[in-house]
Amino acid sequence: MKHADIRALTFDVFGTTVDWRGTIAREGRRLGAAKGLQVDWEAVADRWSRKYVVARSRNGPWRPLDQILHAAGEEILEEFRIQGLTKAERESWCGLWSRLDPWPDALPGLKRLKARFLLAALSNANMALSIALARHANLPWDQVLGPDTVQVFKPSPRVYCMALRRLGLEGHEVMMVAAHLFDLEAAKAMGFRTAFVSRPGEEAGDPTKAPYVDLIAADFQDLALQLSR
Amino acid sequence: MKHADIRALTFDVFGTTVDWRGTIAREGRRLGAAKGLQVDWEAVADRWSRKYVVARSRNGPWRPLDQILHAAGEEILEEFRIQGLTKAERESWCGLWSRLDPWPDALPGLKRLKARFLLAALSNANMALSIALARHANLPWDQVLGPDTVQVFKPSPRVYCMALRRLGLEGHEVMMVAAHLFDLEAAKAMGFRTAFVSRPGEEAGDPTKAPYVDLIAADFQDLALQLSR
Repeated sequence: MKHADIRALTFDVFGTTVDWRGTIAREGRRLGAAKGLQVDWEAVADRWSRKYVVARSRNGPWRPLDQILHAAGEEILEEFRIQGLTKAERESWCGLWSRLDPWPDALPGLKRLKARFLLAALSNANMALSIALARHANLPWDQVLGPDTVQVFKPSPRVYCMALRRLGLEGHEVMMVAAHLFDLEAAKAMGFRTAFVSRPGEEAGDPTKAPYVDLIAADFQDLALQLSR
Repeated sequence: MKHADIRALTFDVFGTTVDWRGTIAREGRRLGAAKGLQVDWEAVADRWSRKYVVARSRNGPWRPLDQILHAAGEEILEEFRIQGLTKAERESWCGLWSRLDPWPDALPGLKRLKARFLLAALSNANMALSIALARHANLPWDQVLGPDTVQVFKPSPRVYCMALRRLGLEGHEVMMVAAHLFDLEAAKAMGFRTAFVSRPGEEAGDPTKAPYVDLIAADFQDLALQLSR
């Protein structure tokens, strides 16, 4: 594949750029140690993410993801019997998705990619959440794109169309980077180039068998290397 | 004035954050020296800016500012008899507004402000131009807002309304920062807080007599100081 006409990369964030499962489990273990709780924190993380996926797929009025995740965080505390938290600790817990840590290769990879490409977040997070996360993790986005104006979630084609309009670019000038095949399939349907990045636990399917995947990278550093050729 | 509920600052860019006149004059003198041209480069800069202001005020279909400035740059070359440029040099000249330098206080001031506030560009530049300029000048915006979707220019109230929608904030939570009174007057009409920043040659009016100006700062460092109180 030729990369010469790619001008911008759009990145999925949760799972692809930041490690939600690892951060939640780590934060949970810290909390558990302080409060003397015995909890399977990886299960907590997966359950929290699952609640978001269900909310995304549900019909009904669109809601900003930070609200969905906050409400789900409250439910998680009940379901896993995580008790003894102060009001401030509960609030901090429910806002944890705005303080997720990047995968170790993410920042150096993005720095290299930024020298050549415009970098945009294209997450299902509403813009306020995406910006908070970028500030926390120092993600060097040139632009933060969010579903706020179209009020639908990926993989709706309207999200990818919004991104092209905002960037003022054609699909073949933009590469979607994600650790999830459904995201890349939908981007490709709108004419994007696509790069799959392997992240532990994110994707059960086989990217080598997906005809809509243009490039497969081990991580963001490897993506920068492959796109520099 | 209480600043406690301000969560975001929106910045005018041309004249307020970057020094278009100084950069164009400097670049012009460099070009003039190389080509043996005698040209009043400050007059060139003012004429170029004037053409944009006229285009902004004209009725008719909205056009992205980078296109307006590019076409005006071509006209400037004819009007001031700037000749002997290669095609690449003409192209570089016409794109000069994407390579303007920040005022000396801008980057340190923004860095201080970013510790406390969300920072967004709210320029009449279309987003592609604003992003190019941010990359050139290392402007640490959390978000770049542009008139692309509303397809009107400041001071149309629709631009400020778009900014509030995108930021998900109320007017009193956002402060518009500009070196031009018309910008602050229009922002105030949509409920924004307003900060006037003095920049040489940008504003003929008297900000101390403007009832819609909440704060007057000498530069971005002074703005950071005043907002930290």
